Amino acid sequence: MGIMRIGHVDLNVLNIEESRNYYVNIMGLTVTREDADGTLYLKCWDEWDKYSLILRPSEEATFNRIAYKVRNDSDLDELKIKIENYGISTQFLEAGVVADCGRSLSFKLPSGHDFILYAHKEFIGKDTGDTNPAPWPFEGKGIKAHWIDHALMMCQGPESVMEVTKFFIDVFDFTLTEQVCVGPNGSLQAATWLACSTTPHDIAFVAGPEVGMHHFAFFLDGWNDILRAADVMAMHDVKIDVTPQRHGITRGETIYFFDPSGHRLETFAGLGYLAQPDMPVITWTEDELWRGIFYHTGVENGAFTTAYTLHAYR
Amino acid sequence: MGIMRIGHVDLNVLNIEESRNYYVNIMGLTVTREDADGTLYLKCWDEWDKYSLILRPSEEATFNRIAYKVRNDSDLDELKIKIENYGISTQFLEAGVVADCGRSLSFKLPSGHDFILYAHKEFIGKDTGDTNPAPWPFEGKGIKAHWIDHALMMCQGPESVMEVTKFFIDVFDFTLTEQVCVGPNGSLQAATWLACSTTPHDIAFVAGPEVGMHHFAFFLDGWNDILRAADVMAMHDVKIDVTPQRHGITRGETIYFFDPSGHRLETFAGLGYLAQPDMPVITWTEDELWRGIFYHTGVENGAFTTAYTLHAYR
Amino acid sequence: MGIMRIGHVDLNVLNIEESRNYYVNIMGLTVTREDADGTLYLKCWDEWDKYSLILRPSEEATFNRIAYKVRNDSDLDELKIKIENYGISTQFLEAGVVADCGRSLSFKLPSGHDFILYAHKEFIGKDTGDTNPAPWPFEGKGIKAHWIDHALMMCQGPESVMEVTKFFIDVFDFTLTEQVCVGPNGSLQAATWLACSTTPHDIAFVAGPEVGMHHFAFFLDGWNDILRAADVMAMHDVKIDVTPQRHGITRGETIYFFDPSGHRLETFAGLGYLAQPDMPVITWTEDELWRGIFYHTGVENGAFTTAYTLHAYR
Amino acid sequence: MGIMRIGHVDLNVLNIEESRNYYVNIMGLTVTREDADGTLYLKCWDEWDKYSLILRPSEEATFNRIAYKVRNDSDLDELKIKIENYGISTQFLEAGVVADCGRSLSFKLPSGHDFILYAHKEFIGKDTGDTNPAPWPFEGKGIKAHWIDHALMMCQGPESVMEVTKFFIDVFDFTLTEQVCVGPNGSLQAATWLACSTTPHDIAFVAGPEVGMHHFAFFLDGWNDILRAADVMAMHDVKIDVTPQRHGITRGETIYFFDPSGHRLETFAGLGYLAQPDMPVITWTEDELWRGIFYHTGVENGAFTTAYTLHAYR
Repeated sequence: MGIMRIGHVDLNVLNIEESRNYYVNIMGLTVTREDADGTLYLKCWDEWDKYSLILRPSEEATFNRIAYKVRNDSDLDELKIKIENYGISTQFLEAGVVADCGRSLSFKLPSGHDFILYAHKEFIGKDTGDTNPAPWPFEGKGIKAHWIDHALMMCQGPESVMEVTKFFIDVFDFTLTEQVCVGPNGSLQAATWLACSTTPHDIAFVAGPEVGMHHFAFFLDGWNDILRAADVMAMHDVKIDVTPQRHGITRGETIYFFDPSGHRLETFAGLGYLAQPDMPVITWTEDELWRGIFYHTGVENGAFTTAYTLHAYR
Repeated sequence: MGIMRIGHVDLNVLNIEESRNYYVNIMGLTVTREDADGTLYLKCWDEWDKYSLILRPSEEATFNRIAYKVRNDSDLDELKIKIENYGISTQFLEAGVVADCGRSLSFKLPSGHDFILYAHKEFIGKDTGDTNPAPWPFEGKGIKAHWIDHALMMCQGPESVMEVTKFFIDVFDFTLTEQVCVGPNGSLQAATWLACSTTPHDIAFVAGPEVGMHHFAFFLDGWNDILRAADVMAMHDVKIDVTPQRHGITRGETIYFFDPSGHRLETFAGLGYLAQPDMPVITWTEDELWRGIFYHTGVENGAFTTAYTLHAYR
Repeated sequence: MGIMRIGHVDLNVLNIEESRNYYVNIMGLTVTREDADGTLYLKCWDEWDKYSLILRPSEEATFNRIAYKVRNDSDLDELKIKIENYGISTQFLEAGVVADCGRSLSFKLPSGHDFILYAHKEFIGKDTGDTNPAPWPFEGKGIKAHWIDHALMMCQGPESVMEVTKFFIDVFDFTLTEQVCVGPNGSLQAATWLACSTTPHDIAFVAGPEVGMHHFAFFLDGWNDILRAADVMAMHDVKIDVTPQRHGITRGETIYFFDPSGHRLETFAGLGYLAQPDMPVITWTEDELWRGIFYHTGVENGAFTTAYTLHAYR
Repeated sequence: MGIMRIGHVDLNVLNIEESRNYYVNIMGLTVTREDADGTLYLKCWDEWDKYSLILRPSEEATFNRIAYKVRNDSDLDELKIKIENYGISTQFLEAGVVADCGRSLSFKLPSGHDFILYAHKEFIGKDTGDTNPAPWPFEGKGIKAHWIDHALMMCQGPESVMEVTKFFIDVFDFTLTEQVCVGPNGSLQAATWLACSTTPHDIAFVAGPEVGMHHFAFFLDGWNDILRAADVMAMHDVKIDVTPQRHGITRGETIYFFDPSGHRLETFAGLGYLAQPDMPVITWTEDELWRGIFYHTGVENGAFTTAYTLHAYR
């Protein structure tokens, strides 16, 4: 019952053909639907639903909304009640309003982000099939990203992080896996990591100057895929913000880089640890904040705090 | 609500001191409790509960029972009703009967295996702590196993596999991730893999001649840890049954080997894929069964079908 | 001065088109020359000379000869004298007799293997070029083998191994890096590994029932490429003899497998160690012989002693 | 005949006990000799000669000299003639002047660096022995560096780089593997990489403001050891200048970091490619210079051009 995973990220991009080439040939996704207005829908080889990424041609590179998939259609009704009891108004969208999806529940997170829940999306299947499958697709392209793993949403200040974190725990039954605590006695959550799966995070929140998306991440198996991915990026002149790193937080292995519109992306590798509701929450103190982000140096690196994607319609 | 993960495996071993040395110095576990009768309780560095392995001095190397942890104590009451409605009698054991645990629910699986559910076990914490933790313990020993990941239980024939699989789906809400289908029209499940986490399996069942445990597995991060683990085993003359392999099933990277009593163990590495209730079940056909087990050769290897651990008190 | 490296392996194969497909699409080589009689010449992406493998259509899968490249043409004259002083007759072949090569020196090793030395072969260049090169070719196919690394020649008995080993040390100035010593007081070399580069071996010899080639090896970077290679083999139903292993000897990471004609091949990964003339020779004793070959189990595995390639014209 | 490899690096350090702790417990070396003045001599586990690093207590963190080992004592006589014919004066030091070494030949490189050649150093053997050895030492500490692999020497301007490069090719028969060419028509070598082994480099030179040592490097097997090494550094608060990277030049996998005195070190991993005298020289053009150094971003990173070690007695 409840939320299973990230369903899709919905973005505006500056040059749709450049974006298509980038996500298909470098990241390894497949275009599974194109609309008359030029909107592209893409999926990764290891995903079975029709798409996990929507790219809309635009004059601004902004974030529209993020969608998560729930297990049963009836969960939407239950969640509607819980969300509204929390004091947030919601709206049911008819089947098809979100492309190839059943009815969906639309609302704003306490942090101000547009959010969608849905239970059904058209099924396509993994590229490797479901009978005697190969462990990876021999014909895959570029980085061969497995799936969209998580997103880090930027909130206006720690209070907003704390509020949306409480919302995900209380209303969506997510588990808080890690937190950065700052301020007097570490009483403010400057960033939080939350899981509905048993991986270290399915969504995360960080305090910043504006409402937006810091990045979303593609999953890779491990550290060697990170090297190969960085090599592929270099071969294609992808702008890399932070080269291969260990995260202290989540233990993940990572690269931060940008798509042609300037959206920050991540390749995130490794299971990290088995997240569980009874796992003690991991806390990073203010003085070790950057050790948490970039474990090896423990210092700020790249444009982590300055380059992100603004929310559209702000 | 419901089962979170494997809690512990309870085994009889032939030589308790040889076993202690093996699990501590080669596998990297820590002894956290010893009883007057010589029984040892051990935990892995990445686990937070007091133990995940019980080794009892014995004259036979057999399997006693396996325990899974549920999220809330009240889940035990709900599960008791569901299990008994299924036609299986259960028994509540008082707190402390299972060492350092709260009350626990004891019963026999439809396959005949002794099974325990509990909600509370004494908390110790990960070896790396929960404040600004290192990604792994610098002082760790040997293979530095992360945690006990899953067990493969042997059942008497496909019918027993099918019955216990149905039980885990219907009563415990596990997800069937993969199956080997044999017989007329592939109508018999010769083996099944089931998840309550979002990893490929938390328990699995295979048809065989007797009721017992085929193996249980320690988690490692990835393929390089598999090489290092096999090197460490060789340095300590550990009997390896199957050298580093890719599983087709689960995509895991693996070694099969034996403890000093002859219990089959596995080091299982990699996330594999993100298991989800709506992921299409992966089916391995009879002709590709061994491709599923040992992906590279697709043929039987080692003593997979002949070396396993019998159930005690049979 | 002297021998630099393995130049090419010259084999007879049963089905030339099946072989072409295999070496091009699975191993990742490129055909750089085809003769009217169907003979194929192939190179790996990381080699700069025109070819390193000759495949001749035949009704038998046999070994013709192996060639090594010397640094200067004048080395051939010096080596001719040294070889003949050793009591072996030699013959200069005119430029072009060995395809696309300058004059070459032909003779039989003391072990009975046909052997060629040459100083010039037509230059093509690495697939990645020599100006601002990428670390690997993005468009490469299949396993993307780097280069042919070494060959293991089978000799009739330890005496033949010892004689040809002495020849390589005395005449070619190779360094003996490792040896398997058997018999009374370990007085017989059952196998030897010899280097002219600073890698653990450029050629090796093993005692067996007949004169032939046990295998030749393609170089891969490391253990992760070994997993990927084994996955690619499985996807193409390549017959694998020995799945991913650690060699004790050379420390190399390896797979043994067969080409469509039944020639044994190896993917060998890792530097192992820096071979040097003053490095103490590593000795494997008779009781640890198989630990040397297959480090993890220390026991014989696959068809190592029974499947190899016979010398043609024997 | 001729130079085999780097023999040792001779440095002044600020705090000898802090240095001992660093090189022993973090880098994994062993102290094999201590002099009354506090000078420490250390070796890596995979080296067989007595030491490869000399650390002298000092009030400045400077470079004294670097030594290379030749194959035969008589090579020293031949090289003395060649060096002096080149116009450089040399001096034979008696056995024992360089600790635990036979007679050695001392001179200044054309670049101004103090340089030593020797043929004999006391033998200790690898930590894993030479009979049935394990592939790595189970009891090793920290990063478990294999051996000192190479040094990058800083020269005053491209002319000095070009002169010393010519010297290494003409007098020492090194092979030029890669070069950075700048200036009009790329006519100036701003940096060169040279090999006497068949690895990509045994010494390298780079133009800079002063005569000194840019860094010396410890060898590790591959990319996974790089991650582990960076983790170990972070656990011990080692100052990392450049986190895990791919070099375009040499294809090596690397970390740049500092010892407690501020000497720049590198962990360099991977074979890269098989260096050979007939391999075409790889050229990096001025516009792709930083792609050569840091392949993934292609831009300057860290203190590469500003932090290095000055030559003592300058």
